[in-house]
Amino acid sequence: MQILLTYDVETVTPQGRKRLRQVAKVCTDYGQRVQNSVFELNVDPATLVTIKSKLHGIIDPKKDSIRIYNLGKNWERRVETMGLDGSYNPESDLLML
Amino acid sequence: MQILLTYDVETVTPQGRKRLRQVAKVCTDYGQRVQNSVFELNVDPATLVTIKSKLHGIIDPKKDSIRIYNLGKNWERRVETMGLDGSYNPESDLLML
Repeated sequence: MQILLTYDVETVTPQGRKRLRQVAKVCTDYGQRVQNSVFELNVDPATLVTIKSKLHGIIDPKKDSIRIYNLGKNWERRVETMGLDGSYNPESDLLML
Repeated sequence: MQILLTYDVETVTPQGRKRLRQVAKVCTDYGQRVQNSVFELNVDPATLVTIKSKLHGIIDPKKDSIRIYNLGKNWERRVETMGLDGSYNPESDLLML
């Protein structure tokens, strides 16, 4: 299944920045980063359960937000890009603290 | 049609921050902000063309990225949230420069 995962993690506090790094690590382990906080994942349902379990253990549900979209079949036809396309490099982005 | 629009806009330069504000303004005019740089839009195809045209006129395609996902039918069943849900407040988020 093709999944789109987006996140907002509070980065005001050191704890928040740690959570951000941990969330990004989980997403990087399982998917393709396409924007700073947007990942595309091609995973089976069991793996998605594992990912969600890991993220549940990391985030602060009162401060952070994760959204998971099941893109369904024919997902390639559902995606359109403008500007940079999938060439996101966190090393060059100041938003990655 | 239900659209998910995500963006990364370079914010290192004043010009980039201006583009970020302009992109956010267009998205806010047409959709519901669900995360810092993630919007859900329920628009007809003609309106989507208008939105894309406006965004084309704002972004720097060598520095910025916009991704548009057509969530298709039954999109409510495709969305799952963890933590904060749709209560994003840009006033309280330091990433909105």
